[in-house]
Amino acid sequence: MPDDNVPGRARVVDTPELAAYYGALAQHEAGALWTVANDIEPWEPKPHAIPMLWRYEVLRPLVLQSLELVRPEDAGRRVVMLLNPRRRNVSAAVGWLYSGLQVMKPGEAASAHRHMASALRFIIEGSGAYTIVDGERLTLGANDFVITPNGTWHEHGNDGGTSPCIWQDGLDIPLINALEANFYEVHPDLHQRVGRPINASHLSYGNVALKPLEPDWRKPYSPLLKFGWDNTYDALRRHAAATTGSPFDGVAMEYVNPLTGGPVMPTLGAQMQLLRAGEHTCAHRHTGNVLYHVAKGAGHSVIGGQRFDWKEHDIFCVPSWTWHEHANALSSDDACLFSFNDFPVMRSLALYREEAYMPNDGHQIS
Amino acid sequence: MPDDNVPGRARVVDTPELAAYYGALAQHEAGALWTVANDIEPWEPKPHAIPMLWRYEVLRPLVLQSLELVRPEDAGRRVVMLLNPRRRNVSAAVGWLYSGLQVMKPGEAASAHRHMASALRFIIEGSGAYTIVDGERLTLGANDFVITPNGTWHEHGNDGGTSPCIWQDGLDIPLINALEANFYEVHPDLHQRVGRPINASHLSYGNVALKPLEPDWRKPYSPLLKFGWDNTYDALRRHAAATTGSPFDGVAMEYVNPLTGGPVMPTLGAQMQLLRAGEHTCAHRHTGNVLYHVAKGAGHSVIGGQRFDWKEHDIFCVPSWTWHEHANALSSDDACLFSFNDFPVMRSLALYREEAYMPNDGHQIS
Amino acid sequence: MPDDNVPGRARVVDTPELAAYYGALAQHEAGALWTVANDIEPWEPKPHAIPMLWRYEVLRPLVLQSLELVRPEDAGRRVVMLLNPRRRNVSAAVGWLYSGLQVMKPGEAASAHRHMASALRFIIEGSGAYTIVDGERLTLGANDFVITPNGTWHEHGNDGGTSPCIWQDGLDIPLINALEANFYEVHPDLHQRVGRPINASHLSYGNVALKPLEPDWRKPYSPLLKFGWDNTYDALRRHAAATTGSPFDGVAMEYVNPLTGGPVMPTLGAQMQLLRAGEHTCAHRHTGNVLYHVAKGAGHSVIGGQRFDWKEHDIFCVPSWTWHEHANALSSDDACLFSFNDFPVMRSLALYREEAYMPNDGHQIS
Amino acid sequence: MPDDNVPGRARVVDTPELAAYYGALAQHEAGALWTVANDIEPWEPKPHAIPMLWRYEVLRPLVLQSLELVRPEDAGRRVVMLLNPRRRNVSAAVGWLYSGLQVMKPGEAASAHRHMASALRFIIEGSGAYTIVDGERLTLGANDFVITPNGTWHEHGNDGGTSPCIWQDGLDIPLINALEANFYEVHPDLHQRVGRPINASHLSYGNVALKPLEPDWRKPYSPLLKFGWDNTYDALRRHAAATTGSPFDGVAMEYVNPLTGGPVMPTLGAQMQLLRAGEHTCAHRHTGNVLYHVAKGAGHSVIGGQRFDWKEHDIFCVPSWTWHEHANALSSDDACLFSFNDFPVMRSLALYREEAYMPNDGHQIS
Repeated sequence: MPDDNVPGRARVVDTPELAAYYGALAQHEAGALWTVANDIEPWEPKPHAIPMLWRYEVLRPLVLQSLELVRPEDAGRRVVMLLNPRRRNVSAAVGWLYSGLQVMKPGEAASAHRHMASALRFIIEGSGAYTIVDGERLTLGANDFVITPNGTWHEHGNDGGTSPCIWQDGLDIPLINALEANFYEVHPDLHQRVGRPINASHLSYGNVALKPLEPDWRKPYSPLLKFGWDNTYDALRRHAAATTGSPFDGVAMEYVNPLTGGPVMPTLGAQMQLLRAGEHTCAHRHTGNVLYHVAKGAGHSVIGGQRFDWKEHDIFCVPSWTWHEHANALSSDDACLFSFNDFPVMRSLALYREEAYMPNDGHQIS
Repeated sequence: MPDDNVPGRARVVDTPELAAYYGALAQHEAGALWTVANDIEPWEPKPHAIPMLWRYEVLRPLVLQSLELVRPEDAGRRVVMLLNPRRRNVSAAVGWLYSGLQVMKPGEAASAHRHMASALRFIIEGSGAYTIVDGERLTLGANDFVITPNGTWHEHGNDGGTSPCIWQDGLDIPLINALEANFYEVHPDLHQRVGRPINASHLSYGNVALKPLEPDWRKPYSPLLKFGWDNTYDALRRHAAATTGSPFDGVAMEYVNPLTGGPVMPTLGAQMQLLRAGEHTCAHRHTGNVLYHVAKGAGHSVIGGQRFDWKEHDIFCVPSWTWHEHANALSSDDACLFSFNDFPVMRSLALYREEAYMPNDGHQIS
Repeated sequence: MPDDNVPGRARVVDTPELAAYYGALAQHEAGALWTVANDIEPWEPKPHAIPMLWRYEVLRPLVLQSLELVRPEDAGRRVVMLLNPRRRNVSAAVGWLYSGLQVMKPGEAASAHRHMASALRFIIEGSGAYTIVDGERLTLGANDFVITPNGTWHEHGNDGGTSPCIWQDGLDIPLINALEANFYEVHPDLHQRVGRPINASHLSYGNVALKPLEPDWRKPYSPLLKFGWDNTYDALRRHAAATTGSPFDGVAMEYVNPLTGGPVMPTLGAQMQLLRAGEHTCAHRHTGNVLYHVAKGAGHSVIGGQRFDWKEHDIFCVPSWTWHEHANALSSDDACLFSFNDFPVMRSLALYREEAYMPNDGHQIS
Repeated sequence: MPDDNVPGRARVVDTPELAAYYGALAQHEAGALWTVANDIEPWEPKPHAIPMLWRYEVLRPLVLQSLELVRPEDAGRRVVMLLNPRRRNVSAAVGWLYSGLQVMKPGEAASAHRHMASALRFIIEGSGAYTIVDGERLTLGANDFVITPNGTWHEHGNDGGTSPCIWQDGLDIPLINALEANFYEVHPDLHQRVGRPINASHLSYGNVALKPLEPDWRKPYSPLLKFGWDNTYDALRRHAAATTGSPFDGVAMEYVNPLTGGPVMPTLGAQMQLLRAGEHTCAHRHTGNVLYHVAKGAGHSVIGGQRFDWKEHDIFCVPSWTWHEHANALSSDDACLFSFNDFPVMRSLALYREEAYMPNDGHQIS
């Protein structure tokens, strides 16, 4: 990175006169740009968060412990948040992305609410999980991905067998708060009436390249709410048969709004990527923050020069403009990484940029 | 419809002076608008074509007969065209839509070409049919739907067992000729090299709500070229479980470009609709022309007040702005109608309009 | 252009068996594709129309003569149509574009109507012309361009001084009829009530890069209805100071919908181009049809190898895929060509293509 | 606003067991959602900034004082920033919007740079100001508005007469930093070569509803860079003759990209609104932050229940979701408010919402 002691950067030396001047400015809710210019105009993005990995084997007992400590009717939701050490102040795991692990006992049902923030869930374990979104009940199993978009009434429950359900929540709450646009409502009846067939959106919109003639969907998010694991894994393997994949991401697919081909929600994107047996990708970096969830297999990622070993259900983050590469540890089976990100924000605001890592054949030294 | 003898319509009475005037105008490549105004500004659309049904049992022997009469290398393609009596001059089955039944012996392969016109195929019988589009080989079976979009190199063949393959072609050739924009090229090598995995687009783009991260598709048509019957029928039945359907079309779905949710090609749309056991839809009419192919079952349609009974592989047309309704003859099984249309043209040019038939509880007297 | 006697084209030789076969096909409303294939799949577009020029000095007396021959209440509108010799059957001047010269005596007012066709006017002479579109009255002067979009109630009148007004009408009536989508209504009160300020759309939308906050315009055409000559000529001269212009069109600008930057109507585009003193452009050709009106100056165009000399208010056409180039006859002043076209249709349907003329330094031999 | 002590909100009572649990979570970079849930999911947006007004008569002497205190080659730019007391930490005037007053002596010229942040300027006083954007020199006068979009090389200077130039800068630097997407480069030659005619974009794109045929503009911001005051004021008065205006904003127009009708830059919008003589608007609130600059006249605004009196060149802010209304103090002349905002961000991310103030006939008590 260039030095700041060059023409075009601020290089003013402090003097008593300037100190007095700064005091006068401060009295009038003003300041001198050159005192902060180099800080607020960095040569390249300075992510707030640090690379992190949360081990599921560590978090799981803590998550289950909450079952005994708080009741849903008091806690609202029983969630262990993932907190990046540099983002604790905004309750974020990375960038402006919130995430947590939620748990529900069999028979429990949370009350319905809605908010301007967008939300998604990735199911980890337990059977019987369901979500109701705008009157449609969605049944969920392991590695299923479901969205509860901005403004939709939604509620979660577990009416399955004998074990608790655990899933990962992902939301843009920190971003929406930062943008001062969050609204929250509790459903007047606390619970919705289910007014459509179970998995109705999945039946109508979860088909290959076919859309219902009616009705005309005008909302700014996907009408398809649930993206099942079987379909997703099958799609990755099919696509793998037709592509060499990306040097940086392996065989990667984006979950999309089937009516637009765009992201599933206006502020949150989601992907699933498959690393072939033995695959080790090259490093690159981009604007935008990503939170990964290991859906299948084991391996490691090098993020900002630091190695993180991962296995199923571990969660790790890649902050904005940070070099990263992924490796599948197995030579005999593929590995799958689910991830969600703020790329739709980056793209809508013309802020997306990416760069390949060139030294050392594209691999960081870790 | 209103009378033309009203203020605002042309009602000029012929006189000798006018006759002389018209002669003078004609000498200068001009004319008097009022002599044609009421004709060229009709109160409502006047379709050129008439409602028609072509029986497969009648056409099939004629199609097979061509196998003995012409060789592909002389005919280009062995196709029996469907000709609407009022559209023979433009080789159209209805509106500006061309259609025909093409046949290929086992072992035959047509040469590759491309054109500005858009094309689609709906497979009727025989195994072993394939199409190669821009270097990708697509394998085809009964009731599969495949597109060969505007500008793509394409060629067809039959390398299957012992019987000929028959399929329906649909093209916008008459429209593109009318718009004076047709181009045609024979492939310099007569045949393409297959440069991608078989069914590659199906592997990469034929998935539910997942798109490849790379590459960025910028062409004005669907990257998915083949839409299989199994998937399509399954989708209709799934959607049927979640919807009451349209009063006019039953359970109807549009084949779409999975990256846009829009029509598969810029000038041709395609749909598949399911009529439930015993279902008889209400009549409506709309601008735009439709050619139907009975994919499954038997029943009848009333089109412009005329009844047409149909069974599997029969083809019938609905001209623009003509009342139509459909009935499934079976009380125990569903019926499926494939159709293609020029709705994308109507919609792109802001010309689409529709109207429900109100008398007699929505049913025409036939 | 290639020969048709090549593999990939139809080359079937007639035989008695085939003649019998063709007869059998005809009985069942069918035909053999190979009998027409080379005709309906030409190597490149075959325009129906021929290049033409209509001299204003010839047409003007004929137009004025109609004032004595017919009354507006009988004729609807007093219009001398321009008829291309090859397009008389569809009342078109070129392609599917209709045009005519309309005349009104001082004090006359035509009744209001609306239609699915899109219309435009280019004012030639006389003061006092006005158009009322959806309740807004627009005042018009020489070389002003005004649109009366698809579906809008509109009516024309002349309440000026002592001389008749003459203007050129341009419509897509032939296209909308061909697409079987035309509707026509006479206003129930024969005349609209003017419910908005005079030139209201011009006041609100006729500003540089500023749009009203309210209301939200959702119609498929420009909210700005009138494009004045002074502004247009000024814009051309300003743009001329910043660009070398196009080698084919000189300094050319498109009239646009100020809310989208797209064409003023979904089926008709319009342009004004300035040829600098002495400028002679290079030839090119493109799909799409154009009708030119000489707004200022004198010169000639070479169209399909034929030279047409023009001066103010002459009208000439360039059929689809026909080479054309323009030359300003004056060495001391610019010339301006107004034109309207069907490019929006070509672009919406992905049919636009263009090509530069390479021989002879880009100039045809005429 | 509802109480938090209701079902659906977090209401967990602290216990020693929970305190231990929270400690365990913290050790693993985790936390319990219910400890922060009500804070991060507010019932409605909680803006960070407070309503503020900066008086030009107070700031101007401070701005001029900087001329003696720092040299441009040391300061980069001589700018007095406006700092909202609650947004000092991000150098913002309101929300994530930065603003400052920049001053240049005659003959001074700052060096060229570019950044991912988007910038705009509103000229206050002095003649001779210019900006060079991507090789195009723009001349500027009082109340002219100019953009230097994301990624463009730009530099400012004053080559006019005898007095300093002062203008207001507006940037989204705080937002782009928050989104961790800022890049900054100093021009390798420190100054650009002017490679296009002066005000070239104004000549080519600053016309009413006419766009150049060439070239095809694909960048995510307006090709028109300068929006002159004369045109703008004229547009407001013309629009005022055709509209009653908005009850909340008077006669308000948005500066737009003339090729899309959308905002001038992807993250920053700008408006000019005219308050008629004596007009006092009704209050409303919306998501999104606004910084106003009084371009003409005098009056007051009530913002969040607090009255702010303003006159020419005063600057004031309206934070997100804060009630506001405006009043023109003069009964004989109009007043004009320039403003810029983050509405494009709100709209791109589907976060825009607004509400009218209903009590007291729409007027706050201040």
